[in-house]
Amino acid sequence: MSALPGVKALVFDTFGTVVDWRSGIARDARTFLAKHKRDDIDPLGFADAWRKKYQPAMEAVRSGKRPFTRLDVLHRENLDALLADHGISAGKAELDWLNRAWHRLDPWPDAIPGLLRLRAKHFLAPLSNGNILLLANMAKRAGIPWDAVLGAEAAQAYKPQREAYTRTAEILGLEPGEVALVAAHNGDLAAARKAGLKTAFVLRSHEHGPDQATDLRADSDWEAIVGSFEELADRLGC
Amino acid sequence: MSALPGVKALVFDTFGTVVDWRSGIARDARTFLAKHKRDDIDPLGFADAWRKKYQPAMEAVRSGKRPFTRLDVLHRENLDALLADHGISAGKAELDWLNRAWHRLDPWPDAIPGLLRLRAKHFLAPLSNGNILLLANMAKRAGIPWDAVLGAEAAQAYKPQREAYTRTAEILGLEPGEVALVAAHNGDLAAARKAGLKTAFVLRSHEHGPDQATDLRADSDWEAIVGSFEELADRLGC
Repeated sequence: MSALPGVKALVFDTFGTVVDWRSGIARDARTFLAKHKRDDIDPLGFADAWRKKYQPAMEAVRSGKRPFTRLDVLHRENLDALLADHGISAGKAELDWLNRAWHRLDPWPDAIPGLLRLRAKHFLAPLSNGNILLLANMAKRAGIPWDAVLGAEAAQAYKPQREAYTRTAEILGLEPGEVALVAAHNGDLAAARKAGLKTAFVLRSHEHGPDQATDLRADSDWEAIVGSFEELADRLGC
Repeated sequence: MSALPGVKALVFDTFGTVVDWRSGIARDARTFLAKHKRDDIDPLGFADAWRKKYQPAMEAVRSGKRPFTRLDVLHRENLDALLADHGISAGKAELDWLNRAWHRLDPWPDAIPGLLRLRAKHFLAPLSNGNILLLANMAKRAGIPWDAVLGAEAAQAYKPQREAYTRTAEILGLEPGEVALVAAHNGDLAAARKAGLKTAFVLRSHEHGPDQATDLRADSDWEAIVGSFEELADRLGC
């Protein structure tokens, strides 16, 4: 018996759930910082500081203060601010390269083996706040087998806004309850459930490094609670 | 020397260019018509008649008479009208199945081998008037290796409206001149060129059957003019 009866499409939070953004950003930040002789800046701290500007930037869109703006643009504005904080100036090509570090993140080890199994029985798509190009370049580089690239840009709304979930189901031609969100973040799952989607929690205990304090357990009775995408495939009989 | 210097993404018209819509629709129409004991109706003629309602339906959106409406919905309205013309009534499940015949079209024999070669050097996406789900289901069934599923629904505009082309380039983070449209239709290519895209014509001399009278040759000096996707891969050094 499947843990998600009636579910036809699985949609995935991406940063933290499918890919390890912190190590990936730190890897490319290290190269950039070394070139600028700023070995005094910890690349992992740089990654955390860049990511910290993510929610406030999206909040400006969610609140209606600015029109929908894709994440590549928000990431770039945040990068400019972060570099200004550190007194670093760099050329356009270099900044474009560093900003695209978000396109070059590596999946957690279980992600692709699990997705390849899940794909046989389900339609798979990211439901990420990343923009289409970011997610598509990431998938092309890492071999992530999405059936379509969805998310905030396709829905023109940032999670956890209700429309991000409901418009994704609509694009898929499905009722919300025929779609399940897979995510490592309880807050994302709570918003998805409120919008009518089914929910699957996957534990990613090192997304924020060894001292992670959040999302170390399921906060609610999500329909599936697993430790990896492979375990999710087991639970769904794939 | 590549026929399309500076081009980073190839976007493809789909119905007629990548897939043989006429045979595919006729195949499933034949099953449907036999079930309704209407062997008097020619399945190929049925496919042509259904397709004939396609441009007028999109025109209502292009002209602003109705808001953007995805192609699955337009196809279904057109199917209802076509069946009414023939005095056929059918149940919802059956109609849903027949309407999804557009999701089950087969590629021309050279399409997938060509795309697999082109994919090594280019970002590949459909730029079709088909909606995201239609194109994604088609790709999943037939193994079409798109890097992302774009088109009218992502751009919220139907070709040949300028925005269908320019917004696609924008989603790809590219200048229009860094994107080439591959299409079997001179009109589509003319609109793409006007919007700043590069253009590649591929001859599909049997899209409309043995008596096809349109698009049997390139009407203009498109940057590439080829007889198959494999020839396009040759011309681009892939």
